[in-house]
Amino acid sequence: MSRRVLVASRNAKKLNELRRILAEAGVEGLEIVGLDEVPPYEEAPETGATFAENALAKARDGAAATGLACVADDSGLSVDALNGMPGVLSARWSGGHGADAANNELLLAQLTDVPDERRGARFVSACALVADGREVVMIGEWPGRVAREPAGDGGFGYDPLFVPDGGAVSAAQLTPAEKDAASHRGRALRALLPALEELAVG
Amino acid sequence: MSRRVLVASRNAKKLNELRRILAEAGVEGLEIVGLDEVPPYEEAPETGATFAENALAKARDGAAATGLACVADDSGLSVDALNGMPGVLSARWSGGHGADAANNELLLAQLTDVPDERRGARFVSACALVADGREVVMIGEWPGRVAREPAGDGGFGYDPLFVPDGGAVSAAQLTPAEKDAASHRGRALRALLPALEELAVG
Repeated sequence: MSRRVLVASRNAKKLNELRRILAEAGVEGLEIVGLDEVPPYEEAPETGATFAENALAKARDGAAATGLACVADDSGLSVDALNGMPGVLSARWSGGHGADAANNELLLAQLTDVPDERRGARFVSACALVADGREVVMIGEWPGRVAREPAGDGGFGYDPLFVPDGGAVSAAQLTPAEKDAASHRGRALRALLPALEELAVG
Repeated sequence: MSRRVLVASRNAKKLNELRRILAEAGVEGLEIVGLDEVPPYEEAPETGATFAENALAKARDGAAATGLACVADDSGLSVDALNGMPGVLSARWSGGHGADAANNELLLAQLTDVPDERRGARFVSACALVADGREVVMIGEWPGRVAREPAGDGGFGYDPLFVPDGGAVSAAQLTPAEKDAASHRGRALRALLPALEELAVG
């Protein structure tokens, strides 16, 4: 019988990303469920100053409310010319929450006069697992730069504007498998695999 | 006969601020003129990474184009929870340039979930003077915090949201004289007074 693991998200792409990473690693015996598949509980606002703080708070809330093992992430884009912002405010950069198109448009407009040599950026992800009284947080980073116009329609968030180092295409132009292999969240989730494997066999 | 000094700005409030500070310091013999009172010249975009860099570039451009002594400032709001941004991007934070209301609204929305103890901020101003082959840049700071709603209709920029340390009212609720005495630009301009006095008697 498989063990249910709550991913504290309603984003189907995030759930599937974790499912793919578990499958590739050959981890069996875990059933990944999202927030829409558990009874609703009050989710605290993300007020932390760091990705790790927010990820851990979300995973604690989910585990406490459901009794399930809970994985939560907080991720964002850290832009050099913005001193590392949008950072923990990535999702609400344009004011509302999760307005990808508006966030991308605002970021581009803010960087209009920023020359190419100062457009460095990195995606950062903190992934936390809270289960059976244990807490783990892993950080993954994906270095690159902010393009001058969006490209591609895969991915989500700032993917259309983010060109990873070593390539010429945006994160939104990568296949899901290419993105998993390189991305910040992929790196952080793979770093969580040992802890997830323990759950599967535990 | 008075010597003309170009302030590289079209903002009448900035011109008057310098005029008041010169008058209070008893500096006579300087006629402050703005960009609307000199033949138009091409103004380079502000692409510097620091206030000082931008102020100096603007003052150099103005002096080179007009042959006048030129004062230029670059100022902005540095918010702790935004790692010091909007910073040099203060004027175009919401995408367009100089849209005060939109900038204030965006800043408030970005900080919605940021608790009171992390709402520290400071106004920073770099004021440069380029004249007779000499270059001077002075920095002034004004510490405070970002309020939860705008107040007052004086000032400009982020003044309605900025509550200076030691008081309970916003910068937009201060009289011009109160603001001159405390503000970042007031401090930077007063630090330039010795250099301006030399011009007046030179």
